[in-house]
Amino acid sequence: MTYDPTNIFAKILRGEIPAHKVYEDDTALVMMDIFPQSRGHTLVIPKPASRNLLDADPADLAAVIPLVQRVAIAVQTATGADGIRLAQFNEAPAGQTVFHLHFHIIPAYEGVPLASHGGGQADNAELAALAMDIAAAL
Amino acid sequence: MTYDPTNIFAKILRGEIPAHKVYEDDTALVMMDIFPQSRGHTLVIPKPASRNLLDADPADLAAVIPLVQRVAIAVQTATGADGIRLAQFNEAPAGQTVFHLHFHIIPAYEGVPLASHGGGQADNAELAALAMDIAAAL
Repeated sequence: MTYDPTNIFAKILRGEIPAHKVYEDDTALVMMDIFPQSRGHTLVIPKPASRNLLDADPADLAAVIPLVQRVAIAVQTATGADGIRLAQFNEAPAGQTVFHLHFHIIPAYEGVPLASHGGGQADNAELAALAMDIAAAL
Repeated sequence: MTYDPTNIFAKILRGEIPAHKVYEDDTALVMMDIFPQSRGHTLVIPKPASRNLLDADPADLAAVIPLVQRVAIAVQTATGADGIRLAQFNEAPAGQTVFHLHFHIIPAYEGVPLASHGGGQADNAELAALAMDIAAAL
């Protein structure tokens, strides 16, 4: 399996299409998932080109995982979630839909089932507000 | 939330109860999940005491994530899975059932839905054989 630089996250990383950004540095971009499985569903996207976990540079993984942790804590703080799921999917049969490595940070709320990822697109104003709240908690 | 050293993974790390071990070094233990969500469901358990991702030492996370990657690749090789899901749950509302940090590596097979984690316990002989196959692919 090879890396296709026309995937939507590569376009966002190049600034060709907009996103609800939470944070960005030289190594990664953090943004809201526009098809959230729960309120506050956030993505951490390492910048180096890799299709998923299986072909990533181990040094890039080591560099980004502390940011994944910081974002998980900030998402919980900003949303008041009762728990946090970290998920990362490799290849379509495992649920991967965009073929640039990314980590899902999905808040869990007691008694609220997760929406399917292919559900409706979230309200842009709500996503913008969540992005600001999570950025403030980072 | 505090760390309880009587959790079942701490007991396994101390050698007090057995497990279907795949790999062990100074930093982590890799073993089969005895309530697998699919054939080959494997756990990577960092040795340092932390409840989950939220209270882990970032340096410990950076040290273990390359092993998580290696195990994901080995599980795919050994099982012939069509994809791999990486999952890590924080607190009970998010699905955490053992309160020592661990990463789930869950093979995905085209057209086969995941079993629930609270499903039946796997056959010990099958788990032992899988552990050997994955260890050989590491």
